[in-house]
Amino acid sequence: MSIVYIAIVCGIVAVLYGAFTSSQVLRASPGDARMQDIAAAIQEGAKAYLGRQYTAIAIVGVVVAVVIALTLGLESTVGFLIGAVLSGVAGYVGMNISVRANVRTAEAARTSLQGGLTLAFRSGAITGMLVAGLGLLSICGIFWYLVAVTGVAPNDREVIDTLTALAFGASLISIFARLGGGIFTKAADVGADLVGKVEAGIPEDDPRNPAVIADNVGDNVGDCAGMAADLFETYVVTLGLTMVSIALLVQASSAELLNLMALPLLVGGVCIVTSIIGTYMVRLGKGSIMGALYKGFWTTAILSVPAIYFACAYVLGDMNAVIGGAGFLDPASDALTTEAALGSAATAGASFTGMDLFWCMMIGLGVTGALVWITEYYTGTNYRPVRSIAKASETGHGTNVIQGLAISLESTAMPTLVIVIAVIAAYQLAGIIGVAFAATALLALAGMVVALDAYGPVTDNAGGIAEMAGLPDDVRERTDALDAVGNTTKAVTKGYAIGSAALAALVLFGAYTTDLERYSAELGIGVVDFSLSNPYIIVGLLLGALLPYLFGAFGMTAVGRAAGAVVKDVRDQFRDNPGIMAGTSRPNYGRTVDIVTRAAIKEMIVPSLLPVLSPVAVFFVIQAVAGREQGFAALGAMLLGVIVSGLFVAISMTSGGGAWDNAKKFIEDGNHGGKGSEAHKAAVTGDTVGDPYKDTAGPAVNPMIKITNIVALLLLAILAGG
Amino acid sequence: MSIVYIAIVCGIVAVLYGAFTSSQVLRASPGDARMQDIAAAIQEGAKAYLGRQYTAIAIVGVVVAVVIALTLGLESTVGFLIGAVLSGVAGYVGMNISVRANVRTAEAARTSLQGGLTLAFRSGAITGMLVAGLGLLSICGIFWYLVAVTGVAPNDREVIDTLTALAFGASLISIFARLGGGIFTKAADVGADLVGKVEAGIPEDDPRNPAVIADNVGDNVGDCAGMAADLFETYVVTLGLTMVSIALLVQASSAELLNLMALPLLVGGVCIVTSIIGTYMVRLGKGSIMGALYKGFWTTAILSVPAIYFACAYVLGDMNAVIGGAGFLDPASDALTTEAALGSAATAGASFTGMDLFWCMMIGLGVTGALVWITEYYTGTNYRPVRSIAKASETGHGTNVIQGLAISLESTAMPTLVIVIAVIAAYQLAGIIGVAFAATALLALAGMVVALDAYGPVTDNAGGIAEMAGLPDDVRERTDALDAVGNTTKAVTKGYAIGSAALAALVLFGAYTTDLERYSAELGIGVVDFSLSNPYIIVGLLLGALLPYLFGAFGMTAVGRAAGAVVKDVRDQFRDNPGIMAGTSRPNYGRTVDIVTRAAIKEMIVPSLLPVLSPVAVFFVIQAVAGREQGFAALGAMLLGVIVSGLFVAISMTSGGGAWDNAKKFIEDGNHGGKGSEAHKAAVTGDTVGDPYKDTAGPAVNPMIKITNIVALLLLAILAGG
Repeated sequence: MSIVYIAIVCGIVAVLYGAFTSSQVLRASPGDARMQDIAAAIQEGAKAYLGRQYTAIAIVGVVVAVVIALTLGLESTVGFLIGAVLSGVAGYVGMNISVRANVRTAEAARTSLQGGLTLAFRSGAITGMLVAGLGLLSICGIFWYLVAVTGVAPNDREVIDTLTALAFGASLISIFARLGGGIFTKAADVGADLVGKVEAGIPEDDPRNPAVIADNVGDNVGDCAGMAADLFETYVVTLGLTMVSIALLVQASSAELLNLMALPLLVGGVCIVTSIIGTYMVRLGKGSIMGALYKGFWTTAILSVPAIYFACAYVLGDMNAVIGGAGFLDPASDALTTEAALGSAATAGASFTGMDLFWCMMIGLGVTGALVWITEYYTGTNYRPVRSIAKASETGHGTNVIQGLAISLESTAMPTLVIVIAVIAAYQLAGIIGVAFAATALLALAGMVVALDAYGPVTDNAGGIAEMAGLPDDVRERTDALDAVGNTTKAVTKGYAIGSAALAALVLFGAYTTDLERYSAELGIGVVDFSLSNPYIIVGLLLGALLPYLFGAFGMTAVGRAAGAVVKDVRDQFRDNPGIMAGTSRPNYGRTVDIVTRAAIKEMIVPSLLPVLSPVAVFFVIQAVAGREQGFAALGAMLLGVIVSGLFVAISMTSGGGAWDNAKKFIEDGNHGGKGSEAHKAAVTGDTVGDPYKDTAGPAVNPMIKITNIVALLLLAILAGG
Repeated sequence: MSIVYIAIVCGIVAVLYGAFTSSQVLRASPGDARMQDIAAAIQEGAKAYLGRQYTAIAIVGVVVAVVIALTLGLESTVGFLIGAVLSGVAGYVGMNISVRANVRTAEAARTSLQGGLTLAFRSGAITGMLVAGLGLLSICGIFWYLVAVTGVAPNDREVIDTLTALAFGASLISIFARLGGGIFTKAADVGADLVGKVEAGIPEDDPRNPAVIADNVGDNVGDCAGMAADLFETYVVTLGLTMVSIALLVQASSAELLNLMALPLLVGGVCIVTSIIGTYMVRLGKGSIMGALYKGFWTTAILSVPAIYFACAYVLGDMNAVIGGAGFLDPASDALTTEAALGSAATAGASFTGMDLFWCMMIGLGVTGALVWITEYYTGTNYRPVRSIAKASETGHGTNVIQGLAISLESTAMPTLVIVIAVIAAYQLAGIIGVAFAATALLALAGMVVALDAYGPVTDNAGGIAEMAGLPDDVRERTDALDAVGNTTKAVTKGYAIGSAALAALVLFGAYTTDLERYSAELGIGVVDFSLSNPYIIVGLLLGALLPYLFGAFGMTAVGRAAGAVVKDVRDQFRDNPGIMAGTSRPNYGRTVDIVTRAAIKEMIVPSLLPVLSPVAVFFVIQAVAGREQGFAALGAMLLGVIVSGLFVAISMTSGGGAWDNAKKFIEDGNHGGKGSEAHKAAVTGDTVGDPYKDTAGPAVNPMIKITNIVALLLLAILAGG
């Protein structure tokens, strides 16, 4: 248990970092009265929206909690509720600091670029550390309570079910938060642009535009709160299910299992420490803003290498002892046990050593670095992809969109190859467990990655506030410079989340098949045929592959519809009150916020339930047609179908959207005719198309994949236990 | 063999129908001298392009033929060459009649709508019957020669390898033709629109636009010749591989196998007859043009029900006798054999009766009908999808594209469900063989479906000629009315082809696994683990799923680049010769055609080789890393990955593109402000985006899937035999 205690301490350090840094951020000057006025309106809108969003989600959550309570019992229900509540807390706290840091960043940017950068990044880092810290504490807490307090074995069914329920709670909330927030932010953004920039011909963030506050609220509830909930989910699912798969697959004594299962927690813990150190390295030297952010990221990544090594060595002792096979070092007794009775590791016939696990985690870090670099390549203004879209804008709207779609399709190739290579290498080293540890190391850097991402909406808001408050032009220039790299960092997080989902999918599928075998008697089934030559496997793959498409269609349509409602409201306000355009009277910002709020909450429900209900429907329909074994076969194939297609849908949408956005920025920097040229108009179209792609439909695919998988695991547990 | 002879007669009837109807079409008046001039320019351009395209393909073809000759021997080489040459012939002849029918259709449309419809449809029907007829004759010919002349058993390796090689020849040529033609037609179309409509402000098909002839050439070489080659390929692959899978999977005596293998040929034959009857039913009554075309389609579909039944009954005799199981009726001896030694059918444990096969084929017909209806729903102007895009155009370019993308994602759902239901039902009836027969019946209607499709480019050209030749406005109105339904019929064929690919994928995978088992000794392998829990299966699925994305990216980029070349040339011509815009001097049409020709041929090579080389690369890389068994496992998974993702990529692109195109047409009909409104401009953008989606990248996914699969089968045969 000492390992778990260390991890708990690291989690507490993260939370303390958050509290300490919050007080630093809040001490900064919030600017003049006009700025504070605007910030207050954004705060109010964001709180009102999140309040209503979480109320709506709570209704669904309570229904699901009752179902879990009736079928899986108290521990699972508590696990579910902890996951759900903490996911909400991560989002809410992130939003809360973000809506205070925005105005302070604008004020700091009056003096210097460094001042703005420091404030915005610190605000992002608070969210990042809270996501990682709360995630780690929730898993540690449950594991500690069940194993140390109630005294069950670490691989007891209760531990597995409770961790799975924790992951489900986090996932369920996060899909609503990602999608609801995504619809809000893009409906407000697209609506404001359409009616402001295009129809009325006023610039972005002009205070005369009634949708301008809603647009800024959207940054906080979508890009900050929604993203935080999503990454919290990814963190909990990845670490939690690494533990579950160890419990299911590795045959060892309780004490050995306890240590091996605690290793992901310790890795998460030490990487929180390296992430915190990294945040202090974010400084503008002579280099670019992106360079400053990268300094922090690379510091964390490099420091994590020895940190992870020492974590492994501390937990496993002899790094070359074979685990699950001939021998396993028990650090509690500090003696090498060589019980042949433990059998070889059940990980697809592989046994592994501590060094193997260490290298698997290095693969995970390598994947993180590679995904960051690839995303930078596809969405940065210095490389071919973005420039090709900018160039294509010269010949019009159509060619801009064609080139953007081509880039979005192409951008899937390198991440896929990286993931494939990682899967092969990790599997060769240590089987499924190796893949799980690679995913764990990938996610261990979540604190830093979220920090980079959450920085974006703060600078975006700061620019909006600078514009609305009429601050001098050079302030806006500074916030714009800070904001430009935000497109890339935002795309990075999404690629990172979906990449981890691809690695996790294999682990989740392993857990699913192991569970099926273990409970075949309770389920009343024989051997389930998962071979590709079973047509129900094809059926499951196709139905799974359909989900991201259908989900994407819902998301895109929802944004279109909600943006239409914004356009209508703004048009009405302009018509009913001519003083708004004259600048003599203030638009009714609250009314627009309220309209987007209602639209977003209404639109998020149906698509979010799609991944919850489809696995259940597929199982029961196929069971009715072809028997229970084939029902489980089709369900299992569906889990892989959803990742096989979801990976591509998500990456193409998030990278493509980022590239469109930055192609517009590249033109605005004076290329291909600059602002106001025909090329710029075409680029604005591409940016508008990319908005729901990259901020609504694309990122929500990640929690969608997880939910489908976890629902399958829970369905299995319910059928086996009920 | 008598069954094969009947099928051969039906094939000859199709060719005779083509010859007879050609003479009818050519007897019609080709219009005045100006019209003939324009038509001659189009003819010249189309012939020049196809000549150069097929020369380029021939180089690749010869290289591949040498490889096949060195590894698989003479029969396979001849099979490959027959497939390759006939695929080219189908495309070339289709183009040849199309470039003559266009001007005659324009002339006929001077008098009446019915006259134009009859001519254009007959021209399409010639292409359709040639595709089906040549396809059927090539398979029958090879089967007859090997079995009746050289006397090998119907399930001998030579038959299987030669039929596979035939399919490969057809596929290899068709991917080049589909992609090269697709790049040509859309580069010319997009380029002409960008520089003509958008920059110079002249209408579509204005003779002052130097790209106008290239645009019309594109219709013939892409939408007609490319499509014909594609459907020829689909026809040959589906029927041929149904025969191969019978040979591999059904355990029966030679005589029985001979009959069962001949059944798909007879079904193809009788459906050629019903298709020919259907073509005579295409008449404008009081209904719409679409209604007239549907009369022909539904006549064929309904007549095919009894035709298929009688074909089955003729071949199998007692429709209730169990095949592959207890008994099997041999029509040659007309005696019921009951050799228990034959064992149960190897089709996943299922045995089946003639009635089962009949019902499987009814499922195939049902899928055809359902796909036609679904495509009509998603691309027709009378339904929600197209209207929602038209409505979204009111708020600008961005919302038009967003809604179009949403519809394109959504349009995958119903076809997937239809295919899934068909797979389950056919499999329940008769195992893999049942799925194969469903695919065969689906493809048996190819003659009629191609006729509906090939009608489109003829009317499109007729409209262009009417415009350029300055015919009265009412002629253009008639050709426009004829052309409008072409968008839907074109989308139908593409959905149909990709739907058949999904069914065929299961059959191809069955052939692959059976081959692996049969040749395990020659290949030096043990049991290959195709279970989803094998990580190399995930690797294969992901790499397969990547192919359509990468391929789509290449296709979209190619169109963008080639269109850019067109824009540049036209701008140069306008600048160097001001007389062009003044209407006093004639533009250099040939130069533009030449530029598009070179660009299209250059751009088609690399993406076309992608599906040929990737399976080989994946196999050898994974073999090197993890051994030969895992190499075959990953390769097998890749075959399914490419269909699981390709199905969605292809349907979303072809349906989405069709919907965008018709949304523009819907606005041009006077809705949402009509021609020249802001909504119309937005709709033109959507149409431009949809062009490479629906006519270049999307449809080429179908041959791409087939090639990947067939290359895998050939690789296996080469490794086993070499």
